[in-house]
Amino acid sequence: MSGWVIIAGLGPGAEDLVTPDVSDALAEATDIVGYIPYVARVPERPGLTKHASDNRVELDRAAHALAMAAEGRRVVVVSSGDPGVFAMASAVFEAVEAGAPEWRDLDIRVLPGITAMLAAAARAGAPLGHDFCAINLSDNLKPWQVIEKRLRLAAEADFAMAFYNPRSKSRPEGFERTLQVLNEACGDARPVIFARAVSTPDESIRVVPLPDCTADMADMRTVVLVGSSRTRIIRRAGAPIIYTPRSAL
Amino acid sequence: MSGWVIIAGLGPGAEDLVTPDVSDALAEATDIVGYIPYVARVPERPGLTKHASDNRVELDRAAHALAMAAEGRRVVVVSSGDPGVFAMASAVFEAVEAGAPEWRDLDIRVLPGITAMLAAAARAGAPLGHDFCAINLSDNLKPWQVIEKRLRLAAEADFAMAFYNPRSKSRPEGFERTLQVLNEACGDARPVIFARAVSTPDESIRVVPLPDCTADMADMRTVVLVGSSRTRIIRRAGAPIIYTPRSAL
Repeated sequence: MSGWVIIAGLGPGAEDLVTPDVSDALAEATDIVGYIPYVARVPERPGLTKHASDNRVELDRAAHALAMAAEGRRVVVVSSGDPGVFAMASAVFEAVEAGAPEWRDLDIRVLPGITAMLAAAARAGAPLGHDFCAINLSDNLKPWQVIEKRLRLAAEADFAMAFYNPRSKSRPEGFERTLQVLNEACGDARPVIFARAVSTPDESIRVVPLPDCTADMADMRTVVLVGSSRTRIIRRAGAPIIYTPRSAL
Repeated sequence: MSGWVIIAGLGPGAEDLVTPDVSDALAEATDIVGYIPYVARVPERPGLTKHASDNRVELDRAAHALAMAAEGRRVVVVSSGDPGVFAMASAVFEAVEAGAPEWRDLDIRVLPGITAMLAAAARAGAPLGHDFCAINLSDNLKPWQVIEKRLRLAAEADFAMAFYNPRSKSRPEGFERTLQVLNEACGDARPVIFARAVSTPDESIRVVPLPDCTADMADMRTVVLVGSSRTRIIRRAGAPIIYTPRSAL
């Protein structure tokens, strides 16, 4: 019995943003577990079994991966981006803590990946070049009051901000309230970056002053970056460069 | 004249954490610019000129890279980690904004990398698995009052936190004050992770309850991760797993 679980980050979409570390793990796996579109990114090969599941079943998926590893299989749980940022790593550890005692002693590793906010920031310039925060706007596992409190405190701290899961069909109003809170708390026209499907053929980057933002500019494939009060725009012939200076002096 | 500047992230240290995207850029470059130890990571080859400089000369280095690109050279500015997180991307854009007007129309791209906090989090479990912030504790470019305000607001928002540049010989007292502020603001024994030189032969990971932390546990090769009030520790035979659950309910 020499099974293991590796929770691996596939990055935002492009194959050349997958680290060799993750590629090696995928090559050694007997089983791939994950959300349907991420599992689909791993090529078929003899000896590899793919277990694709829908979203919102993260804990079941994690328990399945751990049970297979306990039987000696080499399991890679795939996430997009980085598995430790609003992705599968916490779900696997929740399942470990709640599960069979012997699961604690399994060989479990997390392999980092390029998370969406860093890929998006790179496309826009360097909007996260000074202190920043990352907030998951999904209210599936978090009351709106917590989100609103964090938004107001983040604005007061003058963090640049990255928002994951800004909007879904099941809760269209959340991002609209987010924009209202930000306009109240920031009170300026700082740039907001809507980065959709970065590094895929569907990529689009849109830069909009905060007061002009509307909720329909984001969907679940969008990561939203909001500048701090000091974020700069360099205008030029092509797309503008958005960056936050290193200094707060 | 088809010069360009690419600002590329080399990741935290291990070669298998460098993306193929970055490796391709390094292979196409005529010139590599950066801080001495990062430039040293790029292998010598015919046709490649390496320009290594000391730290604290980021703007000069950026201007040099831009000037060479304007002359038609293919220049990679190397950063460790991700270039957009407390690294060279903002410095290059500061130089663009302050520099010759024609620099704005250069082909300038940022290629993301695995930033230190994500590599460190992966080693420890998933401490950044819920909302979090990243703060540069260096006070070279930021008054201590700004740092202290951000620490207190981040604790109030119940963010997990990642600290870059926690401590240097020239300012040993800053991190001690950081720990005092955190103990006051958090008032609990949440885990703190001192992750040094992650993915290199010198790697060490140490987990310490907040009240037991001392400033000498960090140096400039350390990234420090602080859990939120909800961060969990899974005890087991080997190193404990530190993770922050996805839910705030």
